[in-house]
Order: sequence, then C-alpha cells, then structure tokens
Amino acid sequence: MPTDAETACFEAGIKFGTLYHQFTGTPVDHDSAPGLEHAMEEAIENQPYCTNASVTIREDRLDEAIDPAVGYTELQGPLLDAGITVEYEGITVHTRMELEEGYPRMRVESVERE
Amino acid sequence: MPTDAETACFEAGIKFGTLYHQFTGTPVDHDSAPGLEHAMEEAIENQPYCTNASVTIREDRLDEAIDPAVGYTELQGPLLDAGITVEYEGITVHTRMELEEGYPRMRVESVERE
Amino acid sequence: MPTDAETACFEAGIKFGTLYHQFTGTPVDHDSAPGLEHAMEEAIENQPYCTNASVTIREDRLDEAIDPAVGYTELQGPLLDAGITVEYEGITVHTRMELEEGYPRMRVESVERE
Amino acid sequence: MPTDAETACFEAGIKFGTLYHQFTGTPVDHDSAPGLEHAMEEAIENQPYCTNASVTIREDRLDEAIDPAVGYTELQGPLLDAGITVEYEGITVHTRMELEEGYPRMRVESVERE
Repeated sequence: MPTDAETACFEAGIKFGTLYHQFTGTPVDHDSAPGLEHAMEEAIENQPYCTNASVTIREDRLDEAIDPAVGYTELQGPLLDAGITVEYEGITVHTRMELEEGYPRMRVESVERE
Repeated sequence: MPTDAETACFEAGIKFGTLYHQFTGTPVDHDSAPGLEHAMEEAIENQPYCTNASVTIREDRLDEAIDPAVGYTELQGPLLDAGITVEYEGITVHTRMELEEGYPRMRVESVERE
Repeated sequence: MPTDAETACFEAGIKFGTLYHQFTGTPVDHDSAPGLEHAMEEAIENQPYCTNASVTIREDRLDEAIDPAVGYTELQGPLLDAGITVEYEGITVHTRMELEEGYPRMRVESVERE
Repeated sequence: MPTDAETACFEAGIKFGTLYHQFTGTPVDHDSAPGLEHAMEEAIENQPYCTNASVTIREDRLDEAIDPAVGYTELQGPLLDAGITVEYEGITVHTRMELEEGYPRMRVESVERE
C-alpha cells in the first residue's frame, strides 16, 4: 500500500498531466495570455486535494513563439512555468514545471509532513 | 474551387471544432465558469478571420452536472451555448452551437455578403 | 440560410478543428505513429457526414522533432499531412491540411455537386 | 527532497493526467475502440519511466453511451478501465483507474522496492 506522501505525490502528478494535456494547443497571444493563465489555475484548483495552482505564460518566450505574420501561437509546454500544491492527509506536496535544457520538466520540490 | 462563402464556412467550422475539442474535459465549477468562458472566447478570437466568439456555460446545466460530493465536473458540449462569427473576403458567417434533443448541434445561421 | 455546399464546408471545418485540437500534444515516436494515424482517421470518420479521413505523420519531420535524449515528441500540426472528405446532401467536399511556409494550413480543395 | 518512491508516484500521476485529458473527447464507436485503446497505450508508454499502459474501453458502457441515432459517442473517463506501471530508480509503481460509484477513480495499487 502507498504511504500518504506517495498518494499525495500521485495526486500532484495527475494535476500536472491535466494542466499540460488539457491546455497545450490553445491559441494564445499577449492579450489573451493573462486570462488563460487564470482559467488554467482555476481549473486545476477544482481538482481534489489541490490547494494552489500558479501558471505563468512567459512573455519573453511567447514573443519568440509568435510569428508576426500569424499574430498568435499555440500554447506549448516550453512557454509555461507552473507550480501546483497538493494537500492530502496532512502532507503538503509542492511541485513545479520549468524549462530545463529546452525541455519542460516537472518535479516534486518538497514533501512536508504537518 | 470553393467560393468565398464556402471558405468562410469552412473557417467557421474549424473554430467550432477547436472550441469543442480543446476545452471539453476542463475541470469546472460555478466559480471558475466565467473565467473559462472568457478564456475560450479569447482563444478562438485569436484564430484567423474570427471576429467574435461568445461562450456561455449554462448555469442550470452545470448545476445538474456537478455531483455535490465531488464539487465540480468536466466541461462537456451539452453544458455550452456558443456563437462564432467569421469574416472572410467580405462574407460574414454567423454560426452557433446549442443543445438540440440532448445533442450539442453546430450549425450555420447566416451567410451575408457585404 | 446557407447552401448545402456551405453547410458541407462548415462540417468539414469542424472535423479539421477536431483532428487538430483533440490529438496534438499526444506523445509520439516512430513506432507509435502508425497506430496513432489510424486511430485519428477512425475517430474523425465517426463524425457526421465524414466519408474519409487520411492522416500521415511525416517520418522526416518526426525525425527532426524527436530529441534523441528524450526519444519521443508531442504531436504537432506541422508534423501532419491530412485529408478529410465530407458528403452532405449530394455535395462532396475534399479538404486538406499541409505545411505551407512552416505553418500547417487547412483548405478546401474542391466542392463537387453530384 | 522527495524519496524515489514519491517521485515514482508523481511520475505515474502525470501519465494518468495525460491519458485522461489528452484522449477524452475523442469520437469513438465499437469499431474504432480497439485501435484507440492501442494508440492510447503506445502514447503513454512513450513517456519517461512508463513500462506499461493498458487501456480498456468497456464495451458494455460504450453500448449504453452510444445513442443509436448518432452512432458514436465521445470518449469519457467512466468508459475506461486503465492500468499504468512506472519504474523509477528501482521502484515499481502500479496504478489503476476504475469506475467507483460512478466516478472514474485513479489510485496507487502498489509501490514495490526491488
């Protein structure tokens, strides 16, 4: 049987898979990025045990990704920094996604017992 | 070769397929619905030739869809009313999606030449 | 009111928006590409009025997209060539998506009356 | 810092979030279900540390979900049984998703040290 901390980490992973695969592909530009960030945060915070989600669509990377002839791009993992916190049975798990050598890498930052 | 009106209708269809298949599955409750509606509208308005998108997550149907023991649901087509307007080469196409006998039906409402 | 040909083009657009926004983001490599192509074709052919869908994940572009250190990539529009045929009220519409100056462009190829 | 077992559980969660939010919404009927199951399995097995993914679109539930007047439905969580195995640093984690009181519930079944 998994420990509570292991279950908490599993739950955090589910949220990150959701964040990534639900929203990548969304047409986005500089004007619509803030509203999309907010909608993504609220969507994930609806899921069980999630106490916080923070999403940043990086303006600098968005700028590079947008072809001026097209005027927008599709949301992709490398454009995003994100943090998700899960609380399960007195365990708090902090997880993050950040670009690492060009690849959006998700990891567990800390597992805290109450 | 397609007429301009036929191309305009094709473009409107692309937007509806995007709206539906990008966003259904998103975790949603009453608090997060307005922000999600707005993000969906802005996302679709980024796409070429789209001059307006309006999305309503119907509160009455959302209410029925949310199991109180869970507290949220996943966005599904039947929860949505939506309208998308496309302008292409002087042609304006109005399209809508509404529930019709339990099935979310997308249709072209009007094709107007300038 | 739209003509039957305009409705047929709208229907074809819906299918292309579905194909693109349902499946982009899927983890894919050379081994899994053929099964994914097939699943995408069958999914779209389930939709109303669609008589044929053909999808090619271009091996040459997939090769460029896969970082050998990672071993797979996520399906993106530029990796795809696709064709969708819709028949509606005696009208046959052929549509295609192909890379054009780096951008996956969808267009109506022909509208044929019976 | 997380333990290897906690990281393994996080990784398994990512795969389940991906499986669910990438593929729900896909148009599916009895004929296309086997190919879709296979494509889903292969997609998830592409992801890091995933040694096995098995997906069953339950025929009995699919049958109930398909409106004969429409002929297909959209893939939803309650139609699916799935298992995902992750191996990370000598830890093997088995996870499953099954319908539990009408709700598709994902859980860690076992965490095995080598």
